[in-house]
Amino acid sequence: MKPPCGVVTLTTDFGLEDSYVGTMKGVALRIFPEIRVVDITHQVTSQDVLEASLVLESAYRYFPTGSVHMAVVDPGVGTDRRPILVVGEEHYFVGPDNGSFTRVLSSETITAVYAIENPKLMLADISHTFHGRDVFAPAAAFVARGVAPEEFGSPVSDPVRVPLPEPKSYPDQIIGEVLYIDSFGNVITNVTKALFQGIARDQPIRVQINGKTINGIERSYSTKVPGGVMALFGSSGLLEVAVAGGRADRRIGTGKGDTVLIDILGGGEERETGFDY
Amino acid sequence: MKPPCGVVTLTTDFGLEDSYVGTMKGVALRIFPEIRVVDITHQVTSQDVLEASLVLESAYRYFPTGSVHMAVVDPGVGTDRRPILVVGEEHYFVGPDNGSFTRVLSSETITAVYAIENPKLMLADISHTFHGRDVFAPAAAFVARGVAPEEFGSPVSDPVRVPLPEPKSYPDQIIGEVLYIDSFGNVITNVTKALFQGIARDQPIRVQINGKTINGIERSYSTKVPGGVMALFGSSGLLEVAVAGGRADRRIGTGKGDTVLIDILGGGEERETGFDY
Amino acid sequence: MKPPCGVVTLTTDFGLEDSYVGTMKGVALRIFPEIRVVDITHQVTSQDVLEASLVLESAYRYFPTGSVHMAVVDPGVGTDRRPILVVGEEHYFVGPDNGSFTRVLSSETITAVYAIENPKLMLADISHTFHGRDVFAPAAAFVARGVAPEEFGSPVSDPVRVPLPEPKSYPDQIIGEVLYIDSFGNVITNVTKALFQGIARDQPIRVQINGKTINGIERSYSTKVPGGVMALFGSSGLLEVAVAGGRADRRIGTGKGDTVLIDILGGGEERETGFDY
Repeated sequence: MKPPCGVVTLTTDFGLEDSYVGTMKGVALRIFPEIRVVDITHQVTSQDVLEASLVLESAYRYFPTGSVHMAVVDPGVGTDRRPILVVGEEHYFVGPDNGSFTRVLSSETITAVYAIENPKLMLADISHTFHGRDVFAPAAAFVARGVAPEEFGSPVSDPVRVPLPEPKSYPDQIIGEVLYIDSFGNVITNVTKALFQGIARDQPIRVQINGKTINGIERSYSTKVPGGVMALFGSSGLLEVAVAGGRADRRIGTGKGDTVLIDILGGGEERETGFDY
Repeated sequence: MKPPCGVVTLTTDFGLEDSYVGTMKGVALRIFPEIRVVDITHQVTSQDVLEASLVLESAYRYFPTGSVHMAVVDPGVGTDRRPILVVGEEHYFVGPDNGSFTRVLSSETITAVYAIENPKLMLADISHTFHGRDVFAPAAAFVARGVAPEEFGSPVSDPVRVPLPEPKSYPDQIIGEVLYIDSFGNVITNVTKALFQGIARDQPIRVQINGKTINGIERSYSTKVPGGVMALFGSSGLLEVAVAGGRADRRIGTGKGDTVLIDILGGGEERETGFDY
Repeated sequence: MKPPCGVVTLTTDFGLEDSYVGTMKGVALRIFPEIRVVDITHQVTSQDVLEASLVLESAYRYFPTGSVHMAVVDPGVGTDRRPILVVGEEHYFVGPDNGSFTRVLSSETITAVYAIENPKLMLADISHTFHGRDVFAPAAAFVARGVAPEEFGSPVSDPVRVPLPEPKSYPDQIIGEVLYIDSFGNVITNVTKALFQGIARDQPIRVQINGKTINGIERSYSTKVPGGVMALFGSSGLLEVAVAGGRADRRIGTGKGDTVLIDILGGGEERETGFDY
């Protein structure tokens, strides 16, 4: 566990139209005037806990150690789902216990998890509809200010994890799935570079998605002529399908949950057929 | 009047596409490098002064005392409408005198209002089209830096107020109005929890809006099965109509200015008919 | 060259949906915890280097001297286009060497330009797809922290400039071009106030664009009745066509690259015909 560094990040599905995000920042500033709040995004797909989990994992490790990451995608606000504080070896996480921290619970070494129960560390009036303001922003600000994690409530041994689509791998094939589409239209799958390299090594490969076939893996978005469909490993180390200067999701007609097949084509024979790998 | 705390908030209809908002922050940082600027929203409906007033009121009280709240929804930029500084007991407000502070003028105890006239507290060149940059950002930054309010200009005794739709209440009915739709599609009315409780007390009630009837008040968004239409008091203490996991505005086909009727159904008789209150 | 002031601005085409922008801020905070990051915009038209150049120029001079302005509109990420640091007399600029600094290179007095090559001033793992995170955010943070510009790499004598559409002027006519449409629908041209005043002086003028004729120049958006089409000089000192309370781009049916003619109508004769100049 690292001492808090004063940075709090926000990941929500609140959008930027209303005053919700600004209000949470106001609450945090009241509790800890030296706080530095950074938006990761407020445009998680509404109530999509799995997406929140993926977005958070793609970003949190780039922040200073001792950062507090608040994730509020909270379809169960007002029910008895628990608010929790997850204490990792390097980072802290605050939000509803609904699976938003599924990825983080695997990738970060977890020291402890606490329920957020202490009424002294919340606003005086708790609404049933906006715990981002009333519970989570105060909790994040108090953690950032140095309140000890065990002050928040009792330990939690079973934080909620949502099932994540895992790729299946065989000697000559990987079967993956589209996790999400980014705002450039890049189609991002759950196939990691590590998994891919362990199986494909230097052999030629072929990617199939929604009836389209792509040969080989590119190094960057710029290796294809504009309009060309390509597969590459993106900045999170995940296999993605992209179109040079365009949107791959529309071009291929694909979306979240679609299957992607990576065929490992084996030795010299295939190479001779001229794949542009 | 509280000493300024160094926080400035921004509420505008400028959007985030152009460089307007960033430019205002640059101006503020030049004047007061220690300033902390927080966006409330930049997506107020274009030129909608009433909405600006509502958004500001929903958020400002959550900020530290001594914050400066800048609201620039300014259809009259370049005319002779006055720029003003409103000094409240706990907060400061800066913007055009066009009604944007109508709600704040009621809810905050006002100490004084000044016209912003002092050319030393503005940029050297004042455009006719962007007073957010040339007049209001400098004024907010100078207030945050500690310049005394009376330095800005002469006192104003009659700041502009726009007529706000007020609910009407009778012993067995409240007639309210839709104030705005939030980005989740929740339909937010002008009926406050305090008004409602004073009249309805514990009696069963019925909400009518655009031909739809809703029985009883829910505690949170999660008490209905997905798709269910409900009425509840939202995080600002206003009656709203919502759909569990969906958009109420589209479902009901309602918008700003529509009438909402709350019928108080009286004693035991009604209870027996099985309203899910 | 001014000492860095700790402010870094961001201009990108990344949008706010994904975690890209937040991640860059995390990287910057890790390197320099006291950094203050301000968004100019993340909604530059995708891969539009010329627009990035215009947006940056409209905003940067309003920031404190010693600010570092990072512009990442980077269609060539992963190719051998250079990352550069431009050192001006008052401001610093960091981004790909692809023309994004074209306007700045003219308007700011340039002290030196360096290639960003020093691996100690980048992240350890450089992706081929996200240099905003791996190269530019670290470079901007190190400049803001006070690392000397010459530490970054070798001098660059020929930073890339993209051709900018320049207006043509004659004794009785200026031929300009639409540079961009802002989010209010204002149609912003490349005709500067200085150029216009040098030629038109006090004579009546007529603006023609896409078959529409506009007489005279207004002072502000408020001088016309709602719906009226007008020409005026906007907050960046450029001639723009606007509609009072509406969108000029849709009303006139015009877009980027369209021609705008300004006819100088000469002496008294024209005045008598009643132009509303």
